[in-house]
Amino acid sequence: MRKYFCTIISVLVFFSNVNAQSNDSLNIRKIYNEALTSGKAYGWLDYLCNSIGSRLSGSAQAELAVNYVKKELDQLKFDRVFLQDVMVPHWVRGEKGNAFYKPTTAGALLPVSITALGMSIATPQGGLFGPVVEIKNFDELAVKGRKEIAGKIVFFNYPMDPTFYNTFRAYGEAAKYRWSAAARAGYYGAKGVVVRSMTLATDDFPHTGSMGYSDSVQKIPACAISTIGANELSDAIKMYPQLQFFFKQSCEMKDSVLSHNVVGEIKGSEHPEEIIIVGGHLDSWDLGKGAHDDGAGVVQSMEVLNLFKALNIKPKRTIRCVAFMNEENGGRGGAKYAELAKQNNENTIAAIETDGGGTSPRGFSFKGDSMQIEKIFSKKYLFEQYGLHVWMHGYGGADIDHLEKQGTLLIGLSPDSQRYFDYHHAASDTFDKVNKRELELGAASIAALVYLISEYGLK
Amino acid sequence: MRKYFCTIISVLVFFSNVNAQSNDSLNIRKIYNEALTSGKAYGWLDYLCNSIGSRLSGSAQAELAVNYVKKELDQLKFDRVFLQDVMVPHWVRGEKGNAFYKPTTAGALLPVSITALGMSIATPQGGLFGPVVEIKNFDELAVKGRKEIAGKIVFFNYPMDPTFYNTFRAYGEAAKYRWSAAARAGYYGAKGVVVRSMTLATDDFPHTGSMGYSDSVQKIPACAISTIGANELSDAIKMYPQLQFFFKQSCEMKDSVLSHNVVGEIKGSEHPEEIIIVGGHLDSWDLGKGAHDDGAGVVQSMEVLNLFKALNIKPKRTIRCVAFMNEENGGRGGAKYAELAKQNNENTIAAIETDGGGTSPRGFSFKGDSMQIEKIFSKKYLFEQYGLHVWMHGYGGADIDHLEKQGTLLIGLSPDSQRYFDYHHAASDTFDKVNKRELELGAASIAALVYLISEYGLK
Repeated sequence: MRKYFCTIISVLVFFSNVNAQSNDSLNIRKIYNEALTSGKAYGWLDYLCNSIGSRLSGSAQAELAVNYVKKELDQLKFDRVFLQDVMVPHWVRGEKGNAFYKPTTAGALLPVSITALGMSIATPQGGLFGPVVEIKNFDELAVKGRKEIAGKIVFFNYPMDPTFYNTFRAYGEAAKYRWSAAARAGYYGAKGVVVRSMTLATDDFPHTGSMGYSDSVQKIPACAISTIGANELSDAIKMYPQLQFFFKQSCEMKDSVLSHNVVGEIKGSEHPEEIIIVGGHLDSWDLGKGAHDDGAGVVQSMEVLNLFKALNIKPKRTIRCVAFMNEENGGRGGAKYAELAKQNNENTIAAIETDGGGTSPRGFSFKGDSMQIEKIFSKKYLFEQYGLHVWMHGYGGADIDHLEKQGTLLIGLSPDSQRYFDYHHAASDTFDKVNKRELELGAASIAALVYLISEYGLK
Repeated sequence: MRKYFCTIISVLVFFSNVNAQSNDSLNIRKIYNEALTSGKAYGWLDYLCNSIGSRLSGSAQAELAVNYVKKELDQLKFDRVFLQDVMVPHWVRGEKGNAFYKPTTAGALLPVSITALGMSIATPQGGLFGPVVEIKNFDELAVKGRKEIAGKIVFFNYPMDPTFYNTFRAYGEAAKYRWSAAARAGYYGAKGVVVRSMTLATDDFPHTGSMGYSDSVQKIPACAISTIGANELSDAIKMYPQLQFFFKQSCEMKDSVLSHNVVGEIKGSEHPEEIIIVGGHLDSWDLGKGAHDDGAGVVQSMEVLNLFKALNIKPKRTIRCVAFMNEENGGRGGAKYAELAKQNNENTIAAIETDGGGTSPRGFSFKGDSMQIEKIFSKKYLFEQYGLHVWMHGYGGADIDHLEKQGTLLIGLSPDSQRYFDYHHAASDTFDKVNKRELELGAASIAALVYLISEYGLK
C-alpha cells in the first residue's frame, strides 16, 4: 500500500513538474514573442540616443533622461515609480582635445585623434609639449624609472589582446593602463600620459573612460589616442626617437550635483518582500550617444517590466527595474541603491545587470550562493532555443555589485562581445549600431530569467 | 598475461587519444589565433566590396572579382589555382525602378521605394498603372480568383515572422511569395505584382532576389517594395480601396555569358584523392556591395587555405576553396562544379558552404550520412569555447547541394542570423556592416572543422 501511495505521489510530482516545465516553456515563449513583435525597447532607445543624446553625469541631458525614463514608466502604470536622489561628480570635457606630433625639429606637425580620459585634469592653457616615451606595460615603466620618465609625456601603447574569444577578458586585462597610467607615470615625474584606446578595432575614434589619480602623486593630464593614432605614433617614434608630442585639453571637475536613479516596480503577488531587480545605467560618456553603453541596458530593463504588464503575468515576487545614474565615473547610483535597500531592510534576492551592449544574448554570468546558482542552472535548457548557451560563474555588474554584501545573487547578461569594444566610450556608440531584434532578444532573455526566479524563488 | 597486454594496449590507446585531443585543441587554438591576429579575409572583403562593388552574374564587376580572387590565390602559392568555365544568365536591372500610388483621383502621387525582382521582365516603357489588390497569402489569392485579380496589380504583403528565433526559418517560409508571386497572380490574369521585401527590418530599402515564371502563364513584371512602403501602401488601401498604383522598371534578360568559378587547392599529404571543399559565392545582387551575401563566404573560404599555409599545417586530405559564380540567379556555378567533379571521378568527402553572412559563428548544420555526422558531432566540445554551440542536421547550401548525389557530406556554417536579413539583397549590404572579428571567427571555425575532417577523414 505504501509503495502504491508512493507511486501515486511520484506520478503526481512528475506530472506537476512536467506541467510546470511546459507552462514555463510556454510563458517564456510568450515573453520572447511579445518582445519580438510589440517590444518598446527599441523606440525608447531611439529617443534616448537621438532626442536626448549623451548623458554624462551632471549634464543637462542626464536629467532629461531621468525625466524621460520616469515619464515612460509612469505611463505604463506600474505599482510604483520613484526617483532616488544621488549626488554625482560633475566632470566636463570642455573643448575637443587636440594633439600633434612633430617627428623632427624641421618636420611638420602631424595631427592624431585624442580625447581626454574621464576625470582627467586639463593641460595648461597653451597645451603640453615635450618628448614622448612609448612604453608597453608597467614593468617597462618601472625599468625606465624616473631617469627616463621625468619631464616626459608617457605613451602607454598596450593593445587589447585579440586572441581572447570574449573581448571583455581582453578589456579587463588592458583597462588598468587607462585607469592607472597617470598615477603610475606621475610617480616617476611624467608630465602627461597618452593611452592607447581600449578597442580591438583599428580606427580613428579615441575611446574615453574613467581614470584615477593617486593622492600621493602629482596629478598630470591624461588622454586617450585612437588606435590608428597610436600605431602612427609608435611607428614615428621608432624612426624618430626624439619626436615631440603636443596635446591640449580643457576638461574640468566641477562641484557635485544632485541627480537620480529611476525605479519602476511591480509588486509580487505572493512574496512581495522578496525583490528582484533588473538594471542598466542611464548615464553615458559624452562622445557618442550611449547606445550600447548603456542605453541598451536601461531600455531592456524597462522592457522586462513592460513584458510582464503586457502579458498580464503577475509575478509572485516583486520586480523592479532600475536606471542607475553615474556608473561611468563614480558609481554613485549603484552605491546609493544598495545603501537605501539596506536602510529599508529590503530583501533583494537577485539583481540582473545588463551593461555589455545590446547585441545577441549568449548567456548569463552568476556571482553568489552556489546552491542558488545550481538551482538556476537547472533551467538553462529552457533558454538554448533562444541562443543562450553560456551560463557561467562570473561577474554581475558594477551597479549591482554593492548588493553582494546583502546576500543578493548577482547576475549579468552576456551579449555577444565581438563588436562591443568597437563602440565602447567612443563617438561611434550611436543608435544605428544597435540591432532591433538583438536588443529585443536580450530584454526577453532577462524577462524569462526574472519570470523563473519570481515563480520559484531561490531557496 | 592477456589481461596485462590488453591493459597496456588500453593505456596506450587512451594516451594516444588524449594526445590527439590535446594536439587538436592546440592546433585549433593556433588557427583561431592566426585568424584573429593576421587574417587576410577582412582586407580581401574590403577590396571586393569597395574597389570592385556588386558582382551580378554577367556583369563586368563579376569578371573583375573572378580575376581578383584568382590573383590573390595565385600569390599565396597554393598547389593549384584554376578557373572553371560556367555559362551564366545575364539579367540587367536597367534604370532604377520607381513607383507611386495615387489614393484618390484628385490626390497627389505618393512615391514608394521599389526595385525589380531578379529575372523579372520590364514594365511597358511608360510603366504599369492600375488598381491594386492587397493579398496576404496564396490562399487568399485563390479565393479572390480571376474575378478580382484579372487586370489588377497584385500586392503580396506577407511579412516575415519575427517570432522565429532563427531568421532563416522566417525567410524560408516567406520567400515563396517572392519566387512565385508573378506566376501565381499571372495565372489569374494580374498585370503586375508588387512583393513585400523579405526582411524583418522596417526601413526603406527594397530587397531584390530571384523570382521565377511558369512556362504556361503569361509573364508579368514583378518588383519588391520596401517594408516602409508596404506598410504605407497597405494603410492607404484600407482607407482608399480604389487606390491606383504605378510602377516602372526597365530590366532585361540578355544572352548568357561565359563566367567562372575560382578554385584554389592544397593537396593532401596522405589521402590526396579525398577532397574537402569550402566555398561561398562570388556573385552578388547589384543593389549593395555583396558584403554579407556573400563576399564574406568567399573571403572566409580563401582564408581557410591561407590559415593552413600560414601555420604550415599540411592537410592529410586535399582542401579546396571555391568561389562559386551565379548562386543568386541561376546556380550555374554550383551545378558546374558538381558536374566536373563527377566527370573527373573526384571523391568529394565533405563540402562546407558559408552563405549566411559574416556575423558571429554559432554552429554548423549537416546533411548526409548520419554515421559521418555523428563522428563529427563527437568533436563539438572543441568548438564551444569559440561560441559554436548549435550543431544540427539541416541544410548545407545552394552551391554544394549538387554534390549530395555524389555522397558528399554537406555542411553549412551557421552565423548569428539576427541582422542578416536587414542587409540581404538590398543596397544596405555594404562592407561597413561586417565586423572584422566576427568574419575572422567564422573563417577560423570552418578551418578548424576542415582540419579535423582532414586529419581523421569521415569513415
